[in-house]
Amino acid sequence: MAAAAIVRGPSQQVSRIWRFAKFSNRQSVGIRAYSALMSPPSKAVVYEHHGAPDSVTRVIERLPEEIKENDLCVKMLASPINPSDINRIEGVYPIRPQVPAVGGYEGVGEVYIVGSAVRDFAPGDRVILSPPSSGTWQTFVVKEQSVWHKISKDTPIEYAATIIVNPLSALRMLEDFVSLNSGDSIVQNGATSTVGQCIVQLAQLRGIHSINIIRDRPGSDEAKETLKKLGAAEVFTESQLNLKNVKSLLDGIPEPAVGFNCVGGDSASLVLKFLRHGGTMVTYGGMSKKPVSVSTSSFIFKDLSLRGFWLQKWLGSDKATECRRMIDYLLSLVLEGKLKYEMEMTSFDDFHIALDKALGKLGSQPKQVIRF
Amino acid sequence: MAAAAIVRGPSQQVSRIWRFAKFSNRQSVGIRAYSALMSPPSKAVVYEHHGAPDSVTRVIERLPEEIKENDLCVKMLASPINPSDINRIEGVYPIRPQVPAVGGYEGVGEVYIVGSAVRDFAPGDRVILSPPSSGTWQTFVVKEQSVWHKISKDTPIEYAATIIVNPLSALRMLEDFVSLNSGDSIVQNGATSTVGQCIVQLAQLRGIHSINIIRDRPGSDEAKETLKKLGAAEVFTESQLNLKNVKSLLDGIPEPAVGFNCVGGDSASLVLKFLRHGGTMVTYGGMSKKPVSVSTSSFIFKDLSLRGFWLQKWLGSDKATECRRMIDYLLSLVLEGKLKYEMEMTSFDDFHIALDKALGKLGSQPKQVIRF
Repeated sequence: MAAAAIVRGPSQQVSRIWRFAKFSNRQSVGIRAYSALMSPPSKAVVYEHHGAPDSVTRVIERLPEEIKENDLCVKMLASPINPSDINRIEGVYPIRPQVPAVGGYEGVGEVYIVGSAVRDFAPGDRVILSPPSSGTWQTFVVKEQSVWHKISKDTPIEYAATIIVNPLSALRMLEDFVSLNSGDSIVQNGATSTVGQCIVQLAQLRGIHSINIIRDRPGSDEAKETLKKLGAAEVFTESQLNLKNVKSLLDGIPEPAVGFNCVGGDSASLVLKFLRHGGTMVTYGGMSKKPVSVSTSSFIFKDLSLRGFWLQKWLGSDKATECRRMIDYLLSLVLEGKLKYEMEMTSFDDFHIALDKALGKLGSQPKQVIRF
Repeated sequence: MAAAAIVRGPSQQVSRIWRFAKFSNRQSVGIRAYSALMSPPSKAVVYEHHGAPDSVTRVIERLPEEIKENDLCVKMLASPINPSDINRIEGVYPIRPQVPAVGGYEGVGEVYIVGSAVRDFAPGDRVILSPPSSGTWQTFVVKEQSVWHKISKDTPIEYAATIIVNPLSALRMLEDFVSLNSGDSIVQNGATSTVGQCIVQLAQLRGIHSINIIRDRPGSDEAKETLKKLGAAEVFTESQLNLKNVKSLLDGIPEPAVGFNCVGGDSASLVLKFLRHGGTMVTYGGMSKKPVSVSTSSFIFKDLSLRGFWLQKWLGSDKATECRRMIDYLLSLVLEGKLKYEMEMTSFDDFHIALDKALGKLGSQPKQVIRF
């Protein structure tokens, strides 16, 4: 299959431009190396310009791509739809690939073809992108061998596909801001998010009590139960915290020195209310799209610090080895049954259904993972 | 003059209670030591309960007080009315003296009588309270010798009286949060405040450019001129900053790594707008009585940190020696003409006029300093 063909989407615009770009590319390949290794054609989710993900993304077939001597061609097995993937397509993310672009940022696959100079990988190896990078929503990904990290084939693919963006964020946030010891506590909002679920479990593994805040919504009782089973010390809905002294609810748990906020607005204020004198709130998301509001006295008299966390900064090049050690640790927890989180696997054929779910158009849904 | 007498104020309530308390005290003194050293009676601003300072404060005469062997009795010369003094009387300050209490927190005086065991001070010595403590709004203050710090008699009393709460805050804020070098810049709002004026000068002495934000009000042009004369690199009114890219105004000055906020609300947002990636905003006041509001992306993508500063924490007991070194440094700058700020001296007889000015009832006014 050598020509691009639209698989889904009303407009022909994307594929025409895409085809032109790939065609030029193929021409130059042809001139440079007659016997170049080529990938199979790849089915991919692409967007040509930024905007609402459900209207700007199309699933197309891409032309075969050259596999250079140090490249791996990986047959993708699974890749998640993370909130940051959506922000990248919307164009509101500070770092975004040049359009036209293939969506997705992390994922797992199986080595399919290795470049001529590759020695450390062989077809059949299970690999993830580490550090992650753009373009994982496609059936075949060709990238230089150094960005691939070999993992055990025993790892369930949905965990292998999702182990960096959320679990690694949870791990780093627990480690990087405040020195926490067994017996200490943390507080977080958005506790049912994937990061939230990971924080609960990683905290518990360290003997740290987690105080969790979730939204009031149908099913919040079940969500409480789920979090408690994962190891949450306390779970409150926001309306339960509509009282002056939230700390009276702590029941022997020490006041937290650190809090994690992925919601903003009033929910962030609840995190601040729980923090002990001198505590730190780390913001890593803003699901409510509302700013964080802080009283002057919180800063002066309660000595609170407010910080931000962005995994991207952590994934910087000089940390590659350290990141892989942490990823292996997280994957080992998965294999030991000590780290789990809710996910839903959806076939690539139903990508746009998964996307709608990830966009919240179908109510509260677990993390969507595309299976190729 | 052995009995308490009301000097000003319509209600007799305060002085009656006060008289009773002092009477009990005198009885016990009489039993313990027949030849006790006693201070002269002291004229003092007292409040019996917390509330609006202009209605709860009364000027009364206090009975003579025992001077114990390690005490100094100091004839006060001057003491300022700081915003925190007002907050203490209002009862909104986290640390407040037990009522009934004498107002005021810092000041300068002359040693009048020394306790029998005192060797390092003699009558006539010029002293300030270091660390500062409650009760400086009175003509004679009796406190243990260790809280007094001897200073040069050449120091103008209005500067000696005010050198800790505001100038020391300015110095610590410049030193404690971000490592600043010559050529760097800082940004602040409330720049016409005493702390603000000190920051401008202390920054300039270190070769640091100060970007200053002031309110739009009649006289803001003069305020700009005053700040520029003190060494401000840039002064903007808030309305001048009503544009998307405030950094385009910086004209060669590097983006600031640290900002100081004593206003809150929109004015704090202007400080945040100027900060460079990874910058820190330090809140030390909230003159607008509005909270600080911060976008999620400021935390995550701009990596801003928000902190608070409270001098009280700095004045903690183990820092006493260090504080006095810094105070001597600041006083030396005053003597060299390198540190100045606007003040108005008011006679103690007109205390309530000065208080009204400090409360903002008479428009924008310089720092009020009571001369005894």
